[in-house]
Amino acid sequence: MSYMTELGERAKQSAAILAGLGTEAKNQALYAVAQALEDGCAAILAANETDIGLARDNGMSDAMVDRLRLTQDRIAGIAGAVRHVAGLEDPVGRVLDGCTRPNGLHIVKTAVPLGVVGIIFESRPNVTVDCAALCLKSGNACILRGGKEAIHSNTTLVQIIRNALDKRQIPADAVLLVEDTSRDIANEMMRLNGFIDVLIPRGGPGLISSVLQNSTLPVIETGVGNCHAYVDADADLAMALDIVDNGKTSRPSVCNALETVLVHRDVANKFLPRLRQRLARVELRGCPETLAILGGGVPAATEDDWLAEFGDYILAVRVVSGIDEALAHIARYSTSHSEVIITNSYENSRRFTQEVDSAAVYVNASTRFTDGSEFGLGAEIGISTQKLHARGPMGLRELTSCKYIITGNGQTR
Amino acid sequence: MSYMTELGERAKQSAAILAGLGTEAKNQALYAVAQALEDGCAAILAANETDIGLARDNGMSDAMVDRLRLTQDRIAGIAGAVRHVAGLEDPVGRVLDGCTRPNGLHIVKTAVPLGVVGIIFESRPNVTVDCAALCLKSGNACILRGGKEAIHSNTTLVQIIRNALDKRQIPADAVLLVEDTSRDIANEMMRLNGFIDVLIPRGGPGLISSVLQNSTLPVIETGVGNCHAYVDADADLAMALDIVDNGKTSRPSVCNALETVLVHRDVANKFLPRLRQRLARVELRGCPETLAILGGGVPAATEDDWLAEFGDYILAVRVVSGIDEALAHIARYSTSHSEVIITNSYENSRRFTQEVDSAAVYVNASTRFTDGSEFGLGAEIGISTQKLHARGPMGLRELTSCKYIITGNGQTR
Repeated sequence: MSYMTELGERAKQSAAILAGLGTEAKNQALYAVAQALEDGCAAILAANETDIGLARDNGMSDAMVDRLRLTQDRIAGIAGAVRHVAGLEDPVGRVLDGCTRPNGLHIVKTAVPLGVVGIIFESRPNVTVDCAALCLKSGNACILRGGKEAIHSNTTLVQIIRNALDKRQIPADAVLLVEDTSRDIANEMMRLNGFIDVLIPRGGPGLISSVLQNSTLPVIETGVGNCHAYVDADADLAMALDIVDNGKTSRPSVCNALETVLVHRDVANKFLPRLRQRLARVELRGCPETLAILGGGVPAATEDDWLAEFGDYILAVRVVSGIDEALAHIARYSTSHSEVIITNSYENSRRFTQEVDSAAVYVNASTRFTDGSEFGLGAEIGISTQKLHARGPMGLRELTSCKYIITGNGQTR
Repeated sequence: MSYMTELGERAKQSAAILAGLGTEAKNQALYAVAQALEDGCAAILAANETDIGLARDNGMSDAMVDRLRLTQDRIAGIAGAVRHVAGLEDPVGRVLDGCTRPNGLHIVKTAVPLGVVGIIFESRPNVTVDCAALCLKSGNACILRGGKEAIHSNTTLVQIIRNALDKRQIPADAVLLVEDTSRDIANEMMRLNGFIDVLIPRGGPGLISSVLQNSTLPVIETGVGNCHAYVDADADLAMALDIVDNGKTSRPSVCNALETVLVHRDVANKFLPRLRQRLARVELRGCPETLAILGGGVPAATEDDWLAEFGDYILAVRVVSGIDEALAHIARYSTSHSEVIITNSYENSRRFTQEVDSAAVYVNASTRFTDGSEFGLGAEIGISTQKLHARGPMGLRELTSCKYIITGNGQTR
């Protein structure tokens, strides 16, 4: 039996037990995990120091090193997030639908765990604990495959979680870490049908694309966002500036950040100079009309710019003739994550929300709200940009499937 | 642009229009399609005759030829099914969830079409019309790829549907048939990311497995069923006989038919001889204890028999020590489609429904009820045996995704 198959087998066996755990048992386990993480702070920091030393030796950038770094405060934050998950509603066992059929059959559709969730992610070690906590709360076993830069941190974190579970008579194999970070093992994980029920990649476009190409498992695609704002003719321009500024500059690296702003021709002369002033630290890349209005210093936007998720202080700007052209631009270039119209036109707000085919469509609010916590889901395992199973922020409910339970008294067909 | 990409592009363009159609427009289109199918009966029968002639020349079995054959009655039945779909609830536009957040953001989660649904299926031409009707009602464009044995029937059926849509100002490209039935084109279809949102294979294990291995699209796995009945110690044996007989013999070729019966040792001596008598035309294949009880004429069941979806008048039989052994057998061999316990024990009924990890788990009723119509879903596009997106019979609601619509008055984060 290969290393991955053995992990799969262990996860599957623990999943059968996890599915039957009550809410209280799961919550107590989560509180124990949070406490163990705080108690294990010194060991976690030591392991993290090893990862950071190796990262520095390998010439990792300061920004990346910062993502990798754990501190006592960050560990307290991670433990706090685990306690927060314990406080959320248990998604398992909800009655989703049901009926009594004319023949007397009683049919109840109930929420059950997915089973074994595989997660492939990149460097930040807090993701390790987040995913483990969300899977545990939703009754799923998880197989976690983090980046090799964080392997020492992840190994220690998962060991602490497993010990805490074991002490509470919950199978330690509820949380499994793939300790071999080679690409071959990742590829084997992507084809572990029969053991992994769902695979969730969390990371950049390269990771997502590799999983989509190679996996034979059901996959939930996450987090690629080329988000658009459309400033309509009768928009409140001060509000539009606030929303575009917030969308672009509050955290440019995240998937719900704005990448392109489309401006109605009627307000372009007024809006664009104010936009340049407000976003002084942002590089604008414009269409020919934008350039004509703003004069020198603004580079022309290329086809690649319309397609780009910059993840940086760069914003593509295009003047459009109206909502039709805005909708057409979005249909062509968007990754269907989040888009916003800023308008006071009822009719245009209605058309925009109906015709834009994205997970989250906003009127007069920042796209930065596309997030599990901001949507009131309590926590988030990722943001789905596909249409199957889940779309938009995925919370605990999105980590469940369903089972039909049918009771009768001898019915045959 | 390749043939498949062009089909994908056309489907995608029509999907944008379909998503905005009202219920009445879709229903009127479905009634028009039903009428057109009846009016086109002679042309359909002529095309079907061509397929049947070729099938006979190629030595197709009588049973398969019967599946392929259309008659005036069958066409009337197909048209009736289309009218039935018109009468079902429109799954698009339902409000699934929503809230007003403390910051005043108003969030509504609504049901929207999946977009473009790809369906790969085998010979029966009624599937062509069924799928087209279900997709149309749920606002999806569909790309249909049927078997080459039915290509003349399918081409005529789809042409009639497209003409009927066109007359009602609905894009004919809502329903597209892949007229090139080569394997290369099927493989290209399985990798048409960016155009097809979901791929549903409908057919035997070979087709399902090929799609799982080759597709880079989100797939819904359907219809492989190795279903089990467990006859408990205190079962009503007459009821157990009815349920096993119905499960095995009412339609052995379908996925919700029984393949294995597990019998509690305490009732095996009494039940098994009655089972053999009742299922006189069924070949039983037994474990050693079954053979000892039934004496000669019953072959020994092999490991392959426990794994098999016979699709025929064959039933594997095993004596077990109780519910634990029954649950273990099911966990090991089941395809997680449908299983039933026949019992009068409350505790065992509870354990069985909680611990069996299948799409449909029955107490004292036939597994043959796992079906969209029998569950009250109105119609069915397939039975999902995976846990992502849909599990069990899939009706119109399972052909939708969701969209978050967020309205505010200038909120930023």
